[in-house]
Formats: sequence, C-alpha cells, structure tokens
Amino acid sequence: MAELQRASISPDQALSIVVVGASGDLAKKKTYPALFTLFKNKLLPDHASIWGFARSAIQIDDFRKQIRASMKGSEEEKDAFVQRCFYYQGAYDSVSSFKDLSEKMALYEQDHRGPSANRIFYMAIPPNVFVDVARAVHGAGLSTSGWNRVVVEKPFGHDLASSRQLVQQMGELYQEDQLYRIDHYLGKELVLNLLVLRFANLVFVPLWNRDHISNVIITFKEDILLEGRAGYFDKFGIIRDVMQNHLMQMLALIAMEPPVRLTAEYVRDEKVKVLRACAPIVVEDVVTGQFEGYKDDPDVPEDSITPTFATAVVRINNLRWEGVPFILKCGKGLNERKAEVRIQFKNVPGSPFRGAVRNELVLRVQPDEAIYMKMMTKVPGLNDFEDLTQSEMDLTYKKRYTGGTLPDAYERLILDVMRGDHTHFVRSDELEAAWQIFTPMLHELERRRVSPVSYKPKSRGPDESDVLIERNGFVRSVGYSWTNPY
Amino acid sequence: MAELQRASISPDQALSIVVVGASGDLAKKKTYPALFTLFKNKLLPDHASIWGFARSAIQIDDFRKQIRASMKGSEEEKDAFVQRCFYYQGAYDSVSSFKDLSEKMALYEQDHRGPSANRIFYMAIPPNVFVDVARAVHGAGLSTSGWNRVVVEKPFGHDLASSRQLVQQMGELYQEDQLYRIDHYLGKELVLNLLVLRFANLVFVPLWNRDHISNVIITFKEDILLEGRAGYFDKFGIIRDVMQNHLMQMLALIAMEPPVRLTAEYVRDEKVKVLRACAPIVVEDVVTGQFEGYKDDPDVPEDSITPTFATAVVRINNLRWEGVPFILKCGKGLNERKAEVRIQFKNVPGSPFRGAVRNELVLRVQPDEAIYMKMMTKVPGLNDFEDLTQSEMDLTYKKRYTGGTLPDAYERLILDVMRGDHTHFVRSDELEAAWQIFTPMLHELERRRVSPVSYKPKSRGPDESDVLIERNGFVRSVGYSWTNPY
Amino acid sequence: MAELQRASISPDQALSIVVVGASGDLAKKKTYPALFTLFKNKLLPDHASIWGFARSAIQIDDFRKQIRASMKGSEEEKDAFVQRCFYYQGAYDSVSSFKDLSEKMALYEQDHRGPSANRIFYMAIPPNVFVDVARAVHGAGLSTSGWNRVVVEKPFGHDLASSRQLVQQMGELYQEDQLYRIDHYLGKELVLNLLVLRFANLVFVPLWNRDHISNVIITFKEDILLEGRAGYFDKFGIIRDVMQNHLMQMLALIAMEPPVRLTAEYVRDEKVKVLRACAPIVVEDVVTGQFEGYKDDPDVPEDSITPTFATAVVRINNLRWEGVPFILKCGKGLNERKAEVRIQFKNVPGSPFRGAVRNELVLRVQPDEAIYMKMMTKVPGLNDFEDLTQSEMDLTYKKRYTGGTLPDAYERLILDVMRGDHTHFVRSDELEAAWQIFTPMLHELERRRVSPVSYKPKSRGPDESDVLIERNGFVRSVGYSWTNPY
Amino acid sequence: MAELQRASISPDQALSIVVVGASGDLAKKKTYPALFTLFKNKLLPDHASIWGFARSAIQIDDFRKQIRASMKGSEEEKDAFVQRCFYYQGAYDSVSSFKDLSEKMALYEQDHRGPSANRIFYMAIPPNVFVDVARAVHGAGLSTSGWNRVVVEKPFGHDLASSRQLVQQMGELYQEDQLYRIDHYLGKELVLNLLVLRFANLVFVPLWNRDHISNVIITFKEDILLEGRAGYFDKFGIIRDVMQNHLMQMLALIAMEPPVRLTAEYVRDEKVKVLRACAPIVVEDVVTGQFEGYKDDPDVPEDSITPTFATAVVRINNLRWEGVPFILKCGKGLNERKAEVRIQFKNVPGSPFRGAVRNELVLRVQPDEAIYMKMMTKVPGLNDFEDLTQSEMDLTYKKRYTGGTLPDAYERLILDVMRGDHTHFVRSDELEAAWQIFTPMLHELERRRVSPVSYKPKSRGPDESDVLIERNGFVRSVGYSWTNPY
Repeated sequence: MAELQRASISPDQALSIVVVGASGDLAKKKTYPALFTLFKNKLLPDHASIWGFARSAIQIDDFRKQIRASMKGSEEEKDAFVQRCFYYQGAYDSVSSFKDLSEKMALYEQDHRGPSANRIFYMAIPPNVFVDVARAVHGAGLSTSGWNRVVVEKPFGHDLASSRQLVQQMGELYQEDQLYRIDHYLGKELVLNLLVLRFANLVFVPLWNRDHISNVIITFKEDILLEGRAGYFDKFGIIRDVMQNHLMQMLALIAMEPPVRLTAEYVRDEKVKVLRACAPIVVEDVVTGQFEGYKDDPDVPEDSITPTFATAVVRINNLRWEGVPFILKCGKGLNERKAEVRIQFKNVPGSPFRGAVRNELVLRVQPDEAIYMKMMTKVPGLNDFEDLTQSEMDLTYKKRYTGGTLPDAYERLILDVMRGDHTHFVRSDELEAAWQIFTPMLHELERRRVSPVSYKPKSRGPDESDVLIERNGFVRSVGYSWTNPY
Repeated sequence: MAELQRASISPDQALSIVVVGASGDLAKKKTYPALFTLFKNKLLPDHASIWGFARSAIQIDDFRKQIRASMKGSEEEKDAFVQRCFYYQGAYDSVSSFKDLSEKMALYEQDHRGPSANRIFYMAIPPNVFVDVARAVHGAGLSTSGWNRVVVEKPFGHDLASSRQLVQQMGELYQEDQLYRIDHYLGKELVLNLLVLRFANLVFVPLWNRDHISNVIITFKEDILLEGRAGYFDKFGIIRDVMQNHLMQMLALIAMEPPVRLTAEYVRDEKVKVLRACAPIVVEDVVTGQFEGYKDDPDVPEDSITPTFATAVVRINNLRWEGVPFILKCGKGLNERKAEVRIQFKNVPGSPFRGAVRNELVLRVQPDEAIYMKMMTKVPGLNDFEDLTQSEMDLTYKKRYTGGTLPDAYERLILDVMRGDHTHFVRSDELEAAWQIFTPMLHELERRRVSPVSYKPKSRGPDESDVLIERNGFVRSVGYSWTNPY
Repeated sequence: MAELQRASISPDQALSIVVVGASGDLAKKKTYPALFTLFKNKLLPDHASIWGFARSAIQIDDFRKQIRASMKGSEEEKDAFVQRCFYYQGAYDSVSSFKDLSEKMALYEQDHRGPSANRIFYMAIPPNVFVDVARAVHGAGLSTSGWNRVVVEKPFGHDLASSRQLVQQMGELYQEDQLYRIDHYLGKELVLNLLVLRFANLVFVPLWNRDHISNVIITFKEDILLEGRAGYFDKFGIIRDVMQNHLMQMLALIAMEPPVRLTAEYVRDEKVKVLRACAPIVVEDVVTGQFEGYKDDPDVPEDSITPTFATAVVRINNLRWEGVPFILKCGKGLNERKAEVRIQFKNVPGSPFRGAVRNELVLRVQPDEAIYMKMMTKVPGLNDFEDLTQSEMDLTYKKRYTGGTLPDAYERLILDVMRGDHTHFVRSDELEAAWQIFTPMLHELERRRVSPVSYKPKSRGPDESDVLIERNGFVRSVGYSWTNPY
Repeated sequence: MAELQRASISPDQALSIVVVGASGDLAKKKTYPALFTLFKNKLLPDHASIWGFARSAIQIDDFRKQIRASMKGSEEEKDAFVQRCFYYQGAYDSVSSFKDLSEKMALYEQDHRGPSANRIFYMAIPPNVFVDVARAVHGAGLSTSGWNRVVVEKPFGHDLASSRQLVQQMGELYQEDQLYRIDHYLGKELVLNLLVLRFANLVFVPLWNRDHISNVIITFKEDILLEGRAGYFDKFGIIRDVMQNHLMQMLALIAMEPPVRLTAEYVRDEKVKVLRACAPIVVEDVVTGQFEGYKDDPDVPEDSITPTFATAVVRINNLRWEGVPFILKCGKGLNERKAEVRIQFKNVPGSPFRGAVRNELVLRVQPDEAIYMKMMTKVPGLNDFEDLTQSEMDLTYKKRYTGGTLPDAYERLILDVMRGDHTHFVRSDELEAAWQIFTPMLHELERRRVSPVSYKPKSRGPDESDVLIERNGFVRSVGYSWTNPY
C-alpha cells in the first residue's frame, strides 16, 4: 500500500486517540475493532495511544478485557494492541476531567515521539451530551502542539432547526476542517467506488442522465428488528435514522456533477450542489410503515407513529435529472438484509425487439458486494435470433477479488481522519441541504399524525410502497433474479 | 423450442436436400454433421431425405460409413440418420445426371409426404464448377411442385468484376430469394447476438458512435498453417479468404443503423447501406504479412506474394462513424486461435482520475464465447479511493449457460434455409458493396507486386501491423488480460 | 448557373415534350408557364419542341393564344416560345393518334438535331384516362432512338389497393426509372432546402430527435374554397388530396435518416424507410372537418361526408422519433393561406428560468419563404436579467435574397425530368408505404360514415383540432407572433 | 419596469452615494453620467444624494458644471440632478476627512428620509490609494444606521500575489458581501443575455459541448491607441487590462455549468468552478504584439515590452470542454472596434454535402448588438439542390428592438449595487482563479523579457496570431461577411 505510506500520518508527532463514550456499544462494536484492524495492518502509527473516556468506573484490565471481546486476531496482536489502550473515568461536561486526561496524555505523548502531539477525539456518545463534551474538550482537552480533530456520529439533529443549532454550537468551538462527521455508508467499498465508476469509465458517462435513466432506487433493508435500540429509535424513526443520511449520501454521489478535481472540498461542493437542486419531499411521495409488534416493545409508546419502514421519492430539478425519480426505500424487520442502488434504464425507443425488458445497473453495497448490468441477449442456441432472455454482465467482488476481505467502513474512515482527508465526511452545508429536503415532510407527517401502514415482520414491507414505486415508472421484471455467482 | 415449432418447415410437403460435392471436405466436416445434429434435435422434418451428389464412384454403404465418421451421437441415432442419406454419382455439368437424380428423388418424395415436394441444393463444390452445377440443376433438377432453394458458399468471385459476373449468371437462373449465400460467421452465436445486443439494450445505444468509440478492432487469428489447402489458398490469400467476407460481415452488423423491423430484407438493407458508406480501402491503410515457410509448400509458387496475414483499416463516412477506424486483422500461423470484436472507447474527457485506461467492450466470438466490458474500479481495500485498477463486467457463456453446447454455425444456417429466413445470408448487393471496398486495394497490391512482411509462425504477426493499429488510435493497455472465468 | 450547364440535357439529341391534356387547367396554369420560364432562362435546349395533345379541336393559332395568356414575359420571348409549341388533336386511348403524333414529331426532330431524339410525356390528365394514355403512348408514341420519360401527377390511386393496381399497370409498360411522379411540394424552395438544412448544418444534427423535439406540426392552410373543383374534390377529400401526399412527403424529408449520398435512390431509400416505420394512423388520432356551405355546391352530394379539413397524428416507431407526434393539419376555407413546418422543442429540463416558452423552428414554405427559430432572450434594458421575452433568429428570403423571385415548383421539377434526376419525384414504394399509413383509417372513417365537424369559412377550423394538437404535447405560446421583417 | 419596482431600493432609508475620486476621468465619463441616466429614468430614489470626494480644491458650482458636461438630457433634468450632487475636498488616507464628510452626509440624510441611511462608496481612484481610502472610510465614513457598500474597479492586483494581498486587506475591513467589484463587461446587454441564451433555450443545450463545438473565440478590438493612458497602460499591458478580466468573465459565462438557481452566489459558484478547471496558460499558447509607434509615447519607456495586443488559448480540463480551445484575442490600434464571441461548430461528420462550411454562433457585444447563426442553405433558385451558400439566422437588436437605446453597462451595475444584487460582480475567489490561470504565463513572459511582435496601427494585428488561431482548429471561411441588416 505504497499510497498509504505516501500519505503518511505525521510520523514526527505523537498521536492520541480519545474515544469518548468508550464503554458504549458503538465504541465496543465499531471503534475499537476498527482501530485494532488498522493496528494489525500497521496502519496505526507506532507511537499512537488510545484513551477510552466514559462515566463508568471500570478498571483498566476489565476495560481491556471488554474491548478484546470483539477483536479478531491472534492473542499476541491483541496483547500488543491493548497495551496502547487506556481508560479514564470522567464526567462528560467536566472541563477538569478533560484537563486531567489531557495531562495524562501529554506525559505519554512526551515519552512517545513528543513533545509535539496530535489528538483525535472520537465522540461515541449520545446526542444529548454531544455539545457538552465538545465544549469540555475544547476547554481543556486539546493538544496545544499539534492538530486536534473531532469525529462525530449521527444523529446530526432531528430537523433543520436543530441541525443548524448543532452546527452553530460546534462551529463556535471548532473550525469546519477540524470536524469529521461520520456517515459510515461513505466508507463502504461500493460507495467509495461510485466516483470511480462514474468518472473513470466513459461508458457510464453518456448514460447517466434523464434521457436514458428511467428511475433510481436506493434500498436499505434490514431483517432485524429493534435489537434493544427501541428507546433511541422511536424518537427518530427510519427516515431520520437511515434515509435522510445514508440513503441521501448515496443519492448525492450518484446524482452529483463531476467535481473539478478529486479533493475533498470539490467533491463536497458537488454533493451540496445536487442536494440543493432537490425539491423538498412532498407527503404524497411518501409511504411509511411500521412492522406488526413494534409497539409491543416496552420502550415504545403505545400510540407511537414512528415509521420502521419508509419509501420516499426525491425529485431533482436540474438539467440532468428532471423527471427521473430517485426512490429511497428503507426498513427494519424485512425479508432480507440488503443495501443496493438500482438504476433502471428506459426502454429502447422504437425497438424492433418484442419482449425486451429494461437494462438495470445494480450496485450491491452489502452483503456480497457486486456490480452488475442486467441486459438482454439472444437465447443461446437454435431459437429465433430475436428470442430474448435476460442475462447480465457481472462483477462480483468475492469472485473477482479472491483471497481477502474488504475492510469495514470504520477502518477506512478512521484512517482518513488520521490522514486528514475530509472527502468521505459530511460537511455542514450538506447537512443543511439534506434537512431542507426532509424537514417539511417530516413535520407534516407529525403534525397530521399520519399513521404508518402496518406490515408483517419478514415481509417485503407494505404493498403501498410497491404502488408508489411503480407509479414512479419502475417496471418490475419477472422471471429474473440475479444469482450470486461464487 | 416452441419458437421453432411455430416457424414450422412446410410439414405437408416432402423435403429433399441435395448435397452437391458430397464427397468433399466441406460436406463431410460441416454439412453432414450439421444435418445430423439437426436430425438428433428433431429439427429435421420426419420426411426429409438427403441426397449426396458427386463425381466419385462410391457405394452407398461406403458413403454412409464416411459421413458417420464425423458425426457425434449414439449408434442408434447414426443408424436412423444414414437411412435417410443417399448417394448419386454424376457429372457436375450434366443435365441428364440431375434429371436422373430428380426422378429418383421424386419417387422417394412421393412415398414420403408427396406429391408436393421442396428441394434444397447445397453447393459444397469448388468455385470453378459452380455455375455449371447451377445451370444443370436449373435445367433438370428442380422440384416442380414446391420451392427450390440453392445454398452457395464462398468464394463469391475474387474481385468486383468476377463477383458481378457470378451474380449475374446465377441471377439468370434463380431469383435472389431462392439463393442462400452462406457466410458461416453469420451463424455464430455471438454474431447472431449482435443485433440483440445493439438494439435490445438501451445502455449500448448512446455509446455506439464516434463521440464515444475510439476504434473497433475485428480480429480473426488462426494458429494453424495451410492444412493442405495451399493450392486454393494461394490463389485467394487471407484478404479474400477471410477479411472481405467474414470480417466485413461482422463490421456491417456492428456498424449498421437500426433496421425498420427484424425481417431479412430490412436487416440486409441496413448492412448494404453501411457498406456503401465505407470508402475503398487505401493501400496506406494496409499491412500484409506472410509467415516464414509459406513458400516451402509444394503447392505454393516460389515467388508467391499471397498474404497469409493482413491488417486493414476501413473508414466509414457517415454521421455515426466518421473518424472511427474499423481495423480488420486476420492471419494464419499466429500465436493463438481467436475471433473477437474489440470496441475501444475514448478517454473520459477532463477526467479527474489519473491512470484510468480506456473501457473496452469485447465480444469473443470463438473460442469460449463471452461478452465483457473492461472498466476501471477502485482498488478494493484501504488504498486511496482514487487508486484505480482494471476490472470487468463479464458474461462468459460457458459459465452463465451451463449444461449445453452452443450449436455450430452450420446447424443454424441450414435450419434457416429450411425455414426460408434470409436474415443471416448475404444478399447480392452486399457482395457488390463489399467488393467495391476491397477491389481497388487488392488490384493495386497485385499491380505493384507488394511483398508481404515476413513473420514467424506462432508469433503475433508483423510489428508493422501493431504500428498501423496504434497509429489509428488504439491504446494497448498493459498489465491486464481477461481471464476466462470458468 | 455553371452547375446546370454541367448537368447538360443531352445536347446532341432532339427533345420533344408532349403535354397530354394540353387544353386542361393544369397544363395551362402550370405546365406551359413553367416551360416558358425555363425557355426564358435558356434552360430549355435550343432544339426542344413542345407538343400539346388533347381531345378538343383547336386551331394552332388559338392554342398558342390560349397558352400565351398565362405566360409572363416580353412579346418577343413569347413569340419565340410559341413557335416551338404545336398542337395535336386525338383520342386518349388511341394508338393510332399517338402513332401519327410520333411521326410528326420525328420529322421535326429530324430537322432539329436528330435523328436521335428523347421524349417526355407529361400527363396533365384526369386519373380515369391515365392508364389508357400510358398504354397508347407505349404502343406507338415512344422514341426509338433515345430515352422516353413519363411525368405523372397525383392522384396516385385512392387507397392502397388502387395505388398498387396503378403501379402495377404502369410497371408493365414502363421501367420505374422512366416514371417521374410529381408531388409539386417537393419542388418548393423551402422543401428542397430541407436536406441542406438538416445535413449540412451541424447545429441541427443533435437537436433532431426525440430527446429534444416535443412535436412537429406540418400545416397546409388554404383560404379559398372549392374553386370549381368540387366534383373532383368530393371524391377524394382533403386527406387524399393534400395530406397523404404533400404533407407526408414533407414529413418524410423532415424525419428521414441521413442518406448515404445525395443521389436520387439513396434519398428515396431513406424516405421509404421512415415511412415504413410509421404506424398506420388510428381514427382516434384524427379530426375531420367540413366548412359550412360545402354541401351547397351543386357538384357535391347532399349527404357528403368528405372532409375539407383534417388533422391527423402520425407516429413513427423508431429510435429517433418514438414518442414525438407528427401532426398533419390541412384545410380549405380557413383564415389564411399558409404552408409551414413547425418543430416545437421540449422545455429546458430543470431550467432556472421561469416564464421560458419553448423554442420553435419554423420553416415557412409559402407564402413568404422563411426560416426562423423562436427563442428566449433577456428583455433588453434595465429589467431583471432573468426577465425573458420571446424573440427569434430569422432568415426571411425576400429580405435576405433581394432582386429575384424564387422559381415555381414546376419549373424545378420539369428541369429535373429533362436532366434525369429522380430525387424530387415519388418512387412507387413511397406510394405504397404512404398508403399503408392512411388506408386503414380512411376505410374506417368511410365504413363508419364518420361525419366531419362543421366549421365556419375563414376560421381556424374546428376546435376539436386544437384539442387533439394540444393533447399531443403542443404548447401554444401567447403574446408572440412572427412579423414578416421585410 | 414593474420588475424594478418590486426590487425596491430601501424606500424608507436615505441613500448617500460617495464618489471617491470625483474629479477623475472615470467618475466624469462613467459614474456621473450613469447616475444621471438612472435619475432621469426615475431609478434613483427621490431622497438619494451624491457626494463627490477628491483632493482637488474645486468650488461646488464649478464641479457641477464639470459633471454636467458629459450628461445628456434636458437642462431641467440636469438642474434637478446636480442639486443632489455635492463635493468634498479631502485627503484619500485621512480618517478625519471622511469623518467630516460623514457628518455632513448625516445632516443631509436626516433631512431626507433619515435617520436611517445607507451608503455606497464608489471607488473611482487609482490602485495605489485604494486600500488607504478603504481604510479611512472604514475608520469614519460608514453609516451606522443602514448598510454600507463599496464599489471597486479594476485593476484588482497585477498578479496572483498582489491580488491575494488586496483581497486580504479589503477582507479585513469589509465583508465579501459589502464589496462590489465591477467588471463593466458583465453589465453589457449581450453579456447579461448569455445566461438566458444558454439556459432558457433548449436548442443551445445539446450543442454546447466538445462534441459539437470546435473552438470559441472571444475578441476585443479597439481602433484607438493610448489616448493619454500610456503611463498606466504600460505598467499593465493588454493581458492584464482586458484579457484577464473582461474576456475571462465572458469565457466563464460561456463555459460554466448551469447554476442551481439564478441567485448571485449560485451563478458565481459556477463561474469559479469553470475557472478552476482551466489549466494555467502556457507561453506557447500566447502571441503578443505591440503596435508600431507605441514606444514613441513619452510616457512609455524606450525598451518597453508591454503588449498592446495578445492572443492566448485557454484550455478547460473538464468533461464538457476538454479539447475545445477558448481563444482570447484583444488589442489596441487595430482595424476596427468590436467585441464579440464567436462559437465555431465542428464539421458535419460524414456529410454528403461538399462545400459546406462550419456553422458559427456569433454574439456581437459591441457595437451593434446582435446574435446570429451562420448556416448553410441551398442556393435559392434552379441550381442543383446540393449547391450550398452561407446564410444566417439573425437577431440584430437595433432592427428587432426599435425605438430605444440599450443602457450603458454602468447604469445596470450601479442599479444592481443599489438593489444589492451581486450576480454581475466579481467575487474574490473568481479573481483568485483567474489570476492562477494567467500569472505563470505573465511572469514567464516578463522573466524571459519576450518581445511582442510589432504590427501596424489600423491592421488586424500580427500574422502570428492568425497562425495560432488556425493551429487551434479555427477555420476561416471566405466569401462571407455578415452585413448589419438595419
């Protein structure tokens, strides 16, 4: 990975990574395992140290035991890694806690490559303590001899007003270029690949517009239910939890114009630009659902109208996309786990062939990453030459790229934070633009207390969703399903 | 194969197939095996009979033994098939021979579904006896109670004047719609698929023009040498033997405009149209080669300048193709056996990606039929997201369509003759147009006695060919070769 | 006119032009005046003679006086011209009449450049005597020492069957390349210019398709009523009299693909091709009208349902045009006299401008030939820069090309006959294809005895026509009308 | 002008316009006449006052007499206008001068619609006192009860470093949205019209790219020589004085992508974006010239290498424009006065027409504003229908829009300042981007002391320029010149 060595991570300075909320789920399931994998792959600087911070009183040995639990590797590697991991108990809003932590880190930094040191503050904490922590860190936790970067996770507010407030509060404490807002979908292999596919392959260039594309469906399906997150989830619902961020980020990458160059700001300029060209979603273009049994969860109010499923149509008013519906669909408790982008092309005008069905380009984000183009071929053999069958040109990652696993999104993103590359993080104006698209619709659903349609767990979701999708021009083809070729 | 049943083959009439030249190579290697396969697949009418005609005195049992040798199937099937096969010895130009044969066939026809009968005359004979046979057949061999169809094989003349003469002579005897001129490349699966690919898939429609395609290379490589055909071959050379017919037919299908409908005449109208838009090839756009040792063959003159290899550039002067060279390349004694069409797209204009190489759509005609699109993807993993690698979307027939073998071109074409479908046969105006493109160059090469460049057997052919190809805009990419995925 | 001299008209052979039906309206109003203008412009060969043939007994001096009446020029020119004009009285179906005429012509030809002579037979006669004359001419009137060409005028049948019969009958007498079927719209300046506009101007090339064109309206409006032609007209009606020929010929030129080259057969191949891609018109896509008072004409039956006005939508099922309605509209007794083609473009997708109306390219065929593009500009001056107004880029012939009058269509077409250029004449397969589009609808209207909508003379025609046109996507813009700028 | 009334100019607040440098040329020739015209057209608020500020000691009556000299209107109008004009003598860097002026203005404002007041500071001063004035104004001249806007004129530095410094210095005193950087070309009617032409007319949309455009030439020609500006001009030269600003602004409007909406920041975002996609100009793509006699001017150094003429090629590396040279050409002492944009389209690929020359879309900015499309038509008349002639579709303003004169650019721009519309002013990042394109080339020309080519006054400039232009694909057509049609 010569490239990675080039983009070296400040080799002359110490690096301390503070995981705020170290005892929480996110930290244990995502942050520490990702850091461990980077460590195993020698992508963490030798001198880096990792500082867990949380309210719980935990002994360092217990803490290390906890984080080992979700790490995959040899015992030697785990031993070496946890030696770099420390734990500090403190209050989230306490300047003195962070002052104390900072002094501890400074001593360690001094011993390891100091005196100059850089620090990353990874905020693995609930939204309600967000600003408090940010303020306390700003008050006393920052390095004074190197850079400081703050990694934050969604939710970034729950509507336009609250998002703006959060942006403003953080903006008073940190420069925009110190902030790394994670949308972990931006770290997924197929999503990272979108810019390459679109702008390094001439064959997609003339196709990528309203003249040839009928509709685009971005799907996120989970087969699991709430998994203990009911309390959090019910306050947000699937539209805020998944659609407004993950699916809209994918939409932006699919729909954006080519950037001037591939640097972070040019890429994000274009993402913002296309988001600003989207009309606010109207309620008529939305179907919401709630799986049967949702309200039985003790953490869910009896009269909850929180959607666990939603389909919504985004309309982009620009030269490239006017008239092409971007259909976002996401849900929990469905029949499968899958995230994919499906670009359905138009019919061939005046085609002499009967029975031709539409081409589709499918980007399967997870699981089983793949890119395939559904297309028509002659039925092989002695049939009439105009007898058609659906086939596909296929690029399935596991088959094409054998002998390795793709990195987790968090590994890529934490590495980007260390290297100072903002390309795959969400800029504040993207947040603003995305909330402008969703807020009026969300508020109207809530104001009118629109009840979501009930659907059975393990089903495809409400039929109303299919009706909406077909009304927007999607033609479901029968008799074809892609088979994982490996 | 419901479709085939629809297009039923005159079930109420007898069918006699006369294989003129039945003792020759073509008949044994191609015609009889193809007829046998059709028979096995129940695609030959029950009442069909097959009448070998040649000069040699062979006993029917010996003849049947001979043709069995190249048939693949069970003994029962072979037994059943050869029961339908008869042999008649006669002179090619003898009206009385054909009169006699005709009477024999009439008796058989009478017994099998007659009195009404259709007849196919398959001319598996050398060009010098062509017209004689046609005339003798016309004089006395035809069915008077059904249709008569005449199947002819290349060569269709050796230049414009001789081709015109042949067309005229045949035209005095037969209607154009009685003639089925075989170019067996038109019967190959991937070539048959070309119209489907181009006109039933929207994704290829906007790509298929000078704005996006840099160049097209149509390649035919044989690793074998002369295999006993030296006497014939030296009179024709590779340009007449392969390029002017097989490669030009593929060019026509790739370059033609969409037909009004998929019927034979509309398809052939468009093929003629694009051939007429081709400028005559100029000598500067041609490289010829001759493999070392060619002239050692006893059947080859010592001073032969007959090319065994040629690369030539065809330029199409129309709105779609002006400026896109169609590069035809064919040769014997090369490093591999392969026939393919390679469409190389242009660079992405203003691409932000460095190191992107061009997309290519490859149609691999033989062996190992496949369609694949070379394209760029992000190097999977933690590399910079703008690090590119060449990959491909692939449709390899053996992998995708398992459990069957593709039919031989001759099976398809003979079936088409029985069904009366001219789509995949060469019309006389196509011949005329193709010869207009090649004749001036061929005559100039001969007039100036241009010596072909010598090349080693088992090599890629002369370097001069690569120079010509690169001068025409083809960019060879290094570090990539498609791997047969099955 | 160097070009014309190049295309010289057989200077070594005599030329006799026979005007059959010389005493009729067409001959007097169109044929003779056109011949006279060619003569004045030295475009008639010196040795040419013109032979009127008709049933009436007229003295040569009277005949010359009659034709002088509609000629415009000096007395000297008229004197010189009528010296070449002769008259012969005979029966249309009489071989002996034409034999006699032929002998007379031969004597004259002998004296003027003979013995070799070419002859043009201009059929200015009613349809019912058409074949009789053609047969009689064929029997005895032809030149035996040069070419013979036959010029015929519509109607070419009244439906598919009658047209086929006529084609077949004429085909038994004359080769297709001896026949010049006049559709005089093909001789009009702006119609002749269509191929140039479309294929010599890059700026129209990318616009000319379904991605950019919303609809095309081809309009033919007459303000006159029947003018004594009621007897003839009522048998045919406006659809057969104008739409199926003149408007369809314009449609073909607008919609056809680029020809291989500009020769007559390539051009007509493309016209046929696009006509064959048109679906038969359905009755639902037709509005017919009849002006009030039509049935008061003594030559019109009391219960006539013959339309004097019609709007019909032609749908072309090919790659270029699927979804673009070609709207044909024609009528008598309307508010103005005008023939034009109006190509209305689509809206700008995602346009930031409000109030923009659609671009239109208008080809005004008559009167006042002009080409103009309606477009939006900023309101000149200090208004907001996004305030729009409709303007146009204009090319009006009388303003741009001063000091000359454009030739009449007949002059051009007769000149083409003399030069042997078929480009602007209708080939038999065009007739066939055009009748296939119209015949089912015409027969259904007649079978169901559909009554045309009544409309007031001097009006815009029935409102139902506007409804049909708007339903097909045409957007009428208000507040704009093109002003003739000279 | 209902639109203008809508966009009302703070009717409830007083407005003071300070013209700093009131005794200079720019103020007298442009600023005061423009203000007067706005006044005449009732576009200046009733309560506005205009305060000249300069170093010279002039009596108010004399000052008013001076400014009257270049005003066109009735004596009554002039009387009324000058009553609003005051004069204040002061030092440019003097805070106390501006404090004093401010107090005087406050008294007047108080009497006219106050106490709330807005102020415009129009900087009609040399670059060397620019920052001093800005600082002094900021120190004491601003309104404290309304908005303050600062209008500045070029030059905005003389290279990237000096421009950045200026931007930074001004940025410390004023917000970007208080600054109105004038490039008066942005106020010209045809330039204002560019966004409308491009984005409100579908017919231009598919044409506007590398597939159809061969090259773009933006020309600025003056017939005058130095007119007393030699001292200033010699320090800057034509590239800095005209090309880097006026011509690049036009380039940006022609080449930019469509903005999200038509507001100032979206429009300027796109202008910046396309400027950033331009490669720095290389010296090989530049021809410079100096008219004979230039160095005879007493204010010009004897060895001056300052160009009075330049042609340079800008290359835009993006998807739309790669490979399309944008040729900028400007000079003094040439054969005519003209500013125009000429977009030359490519040849028609595979055109059947010989002798077709390229289409060109010409936007004539001054004098005689016009838009015309050069195109090919059939030679009217009886010529062969494939005989072509160059013609044009034309929109000449004086002919189409009679009865009014177009406003001067300054009127439009000052009105925009009053209305707070930044669309037609240059943002600081545009400056930065434009200087990045020009600075390396300018520095290299100077470092190597490249001598400009000498050319005769009243000529077309150096031949080397034509060579460069033709090398970049421009095809000069002969035998055609557009004639002003009014």
